[in-house]
Amino acid sequence: MTSFAELMAFQRETEALSQVAGRLGWDQETVMPRGAAAQRAEESGAMQSVLHARRIDPRIGEWLEAAEAEAVDDTARAQLRHIRRDHARAMRVPGDLAAAIARQAALAQGQWAEARAADDFATFAPVLAEIIALKREEGAALAAGGDIYDALLDDYEPGAKATDLDAMFSALRPRLVALREQALQQAGRRAALEGRFAPNKQMKLARKLAKTFGYDMARGRLDKAVHPFSSGSGSDVRITTRTSESDPFNCIYSTIHEVGHACYEQAIDPTYALTPLGRGVSMGVHESQSRIYENQLGRSRALTGWLYTEMRYAFGDFGVADADAFYGVVNALGRGFIRTEADEVQYNLHVLLRYDLERALISGDLQARDLEAAWNDRFAADFGYPVARPSDGCLQDVHWSVGLFGYFPTYTLGNVYAGCLHEALRVAVPDLDAHLSQGRLDPATEWLRENVQRYGGLMQPRDLITQATGAAPTEAPLLAYLEQKFGELYPA
Amino acid sequence: MTSFAELMAFQRETEALSQVAGRLGWDQETVMPRGAAAQRAEESGAMQSVLHARRIDPRIGEWLEAAEAEAVDDTARAQLRHIRRDHARAMRVPGDLAAAIARQAALAQGQWAEARAADDFATFAPVLAEIIALKREEGAALAAGGDIYDALLDDYEPGAKATDLDAMFSALRPRLVALREQALQQAGRRAALEGRFAPNKQMKLARKLAKTFGYDMARGRLDKAVHPFSSGSGSDVRITTRTSESDPFNCIYSTIHEVGHACYEQAIDPTYALTPLGRGVSMGVHESQSRIYENQLGRSRALTGWLYTEMRYAFGDFGVADADAFYGVVNALGRGFIRTEADEVQYNLHVLLRYDLERALISGDLQARDLEAAWNDRFAADFGYPVARPSDGCLQDVHWSVGLFGYFPTYTLGNVYAGCLHEALRVAVPDLDAHLSQGRLDPATEWLRENVQRYGGLMQPRDLITQATGAAPTEAPLLAYLEQKFGELYPA
Repeated sequence: MTSFAELMAFQRETEALSQVAGRLGWDQETVMPRGAAAQRAEESGAMQSVLHARRIDPRIGEWLEAAEAEAVDDTARAQLRHIRRDHARAMRVPGDLAAAIARQAALAQGQWAEARAADDFATFAPVLAEIIALKREEGAALAAGGDIYDALLDDYEPGAKATDLDAMFSALRPRLVALREQALQQAGRRAALEGRFAPNKQMKLARKLAKTFGYDMARGRLDKAVHPFSSGSGSDVRITTRTSESDPFNCIYSTIHEVGHACYEQAIDPTYALTPLGRGVSMGVHESQSRIYENQLGRSRALTGWLYTEMRYAFGDFGVADADAFYGVVNALGRGFIRTEADEVQYNLHVLLRYDLERALISGDLQARDLEAAWNDRFAADFGYPVARPSDGCLQDVHWSVGLFGYFPTYTLGNVYAGCLHEALRVAVPDLDAHLSQGRLDPATEWLRENVQRYGGLMQPRDLITQATGAAPTEAPLLAYLEQKFGELYPA
Repeated sequence: MTSFAELMAFQRETEALSQVAGRLGWDQETVMPRGAAAQRAEESGAMQSVLHARRIDPRIGEWLEAAEAEAVDDTARAQLRHIRRDHARAMRVPGDLAAAIARQAALAQGQWAEARAADDFATFAPVLAEIIALKREEGAALAAGGDIYDALLDDYEPGAKATDLDAMFSALRPRLVALREQALQQAGRRAALEGRFAPNKQMKLARKLAKTFGYDMARGRLDKAVHPFSSGSGSDVRITTRTSESDPFNCIYSTIHEVGHACYEQAIDPTYALTPLGRGVSMGVHESQSRIYENQLGRSRALTGWLYTEMRYAFGDFGVADADAFYGVVNALGRGFIRTEADEVQYNLHVLLRYDLERALISGDLQARDLEAAWNDRFAADFGYPVARPSDGCLQDVHWSVGLFGYFPTYTLGNVYAGCLHEALRVAVPDLDAHLSQGRLDPATEWLRENVQRYGGLMQPRDLITQATGAAPTEAPLLAYLEQKFGELYPA
């Protein structure tokens, strides 16, 4: 057995254990008895400790050294690149620090929930300061002299640099601000949904949508959870959604979004299963798939025409006269505070705000205690109205509490990638709308499968998008798409 | 940190991982996508390999040596006894042999299913011979010069010896044969259930029964599976049942049976959670709980009186005139071939048959190729009619195919223990029937919790039953109970 083969066998077992650990998370959010939480924390902790021990196993270093000479093709070299990177990252962070972060994150998550419920940022600020200090320490260990924020960002988006994001994001921000201002001057004249939408009918429609968008139910399942998510790789990729009796779009678009994530995982070359290549390559690329399914396809005029008929069939009359009005309702812009409820235009403004603030928190330019004021100032500048309470502002997202710094920008990067892919898809499938208006997603999902999804972790994220679209990714296609779509929906 | 504390911390993590591995099994039987089977096999294999590595970790031996002097109380000494035993067993079986057994068992399980479907024992015999040879090798390694069958039996019933079982079982057999003959002379005059029983109504009733028998739904859940089972320990103990539209008793009594197993796990002293004492102490004691819930309580005249009313309420008229007739239907004896469908009297005859045959297979007195003939001879002797096909005979159970030798006798040992416990319970709660007839199980389940369940693995199985009942366990109470109950139901 070659060193490469030994390393891959070891890695395969690690990947299998990682799938098991991930499924514990699925179980916890869907079917776990409510009294089992404390025991589950120990179970998850034990799995993480097994996985950590494997990631820093000294044999990996020995195998890697010997395997370099044995890696004869691109696939083998890509496997080694992932293994080397993961091993190096795991080795750089001292065990004590990793444990301290895990402990503080668990603590802070609980305190964040209490602070949000009480709308009290001041009490939470010191807890946040502590997790920031620990993450700075981790970032410094990972960066090994380089940029700390980049080192954290790299965890979610390998190869990405804040300076590249800065250029992209500063081009997006003014035009998004202008677009939302123009649109909101016209708001208030939209139709709205009326009536109640039975949860079981929503779930039935969600199942149909999942299949229509290409999700393979034989290798997955759809359940309800408080927060929708997709979980797992290979042949067991599960998704969840939720239902609100007054707002069926919550269920419908959460489902399509998670289907995008899940289809990516399901489409990866099966020969990569249970290897480092057998997972989506980055959060940004993952989000590009969920967002193009949800928005560029799912909220298109063509697809919503078909969806309108499906919804009439499922729910009867819900107070929207025709497909054209329905398209307007699906894409309605409004004033709001919450990122997860935001439309396509304003969503990215939410993300850019968090990106700038978290960079300042990590660099030390902004102190945790000053976050609420900084948030509120920036929000007023971009959205034009004030935040009245922290649960509508800097306490709305859990991310920072659990140590997720460098994660937020991948949301907008995903939207940027989705814009590039959508532009290329429209060129490749000129009659796409004719298909979408009949509820046929195959031409789109097959193009994405063929050009993006099947590669798994083979290429670096940017290279993958460049190869798929024929050009390096920029914000221009996303901006053009948004300005065209919402300019038409909300003419000046 | 003392060696004892270090050992217990290590063990706690092992127990947590073992719970995770067990839950993978639950997932597979209830919610796993059908296309995920191959990946799941790798995931389960990876978990088993992690668990095996921990069981033979050389630090355990060192800790044990140092910890002996530190174990100051009975609980600590019982923990060490379990850890020492598990470690010694794991160390005695060479890794290659354990892997060969796992491989052959997986292979044989598939071939057994095919052989049973084709009613073809001859093709399966060599596969069975191979797993027997491997299990003999394992038994020899475990026995270290002692009796091979006892060494296998010890895996399921610590401390039990075949010579003790022989005495018990040979006293049972003639009286059970006589009792079934007497009863079946009277058979054919019973009422039977009529109509269809909607699965959702069965599940609703099953949930009510589970709660009535004391199952804590906040630390468990009830789902459907092909074969009912209970899974997990501590605060996450899940059960499954199944429904047949024509036979609601399948669902009802499977549920009560699994509730017995689950209540045992749920009642164990919470300070034992995630330690070797935090699980049911043996298969025999486990089965004593499931069987006393199912039979001595669940099929009693008093409880079936209450259940009759519940069933009338759930299903309307099902062709049984009154509670007395219903009691007869619940406890009807009939001619059959299948262990899992057998009544209280004939069930143990099935088990005794398997026990004698598996002892002969392990000792070498019986060759795998001669099993079908030996089975059919013994069946005709005990049941009085011939087996026409192996799916009704020696191919009906999966156990031997997957290497379970020494497991079958724990079923009857459990019934024997249940007989002893029931006798003591009736003395302790003289008005038990008055409670049961009102659907009040608490006096029975509290007595079992207090006298058996809460102890977990603290005592050896025999000692536990002896302490609970005030006398060493014998078959006499079970025989007296069966002869009284079925003598009255089927008078000569």
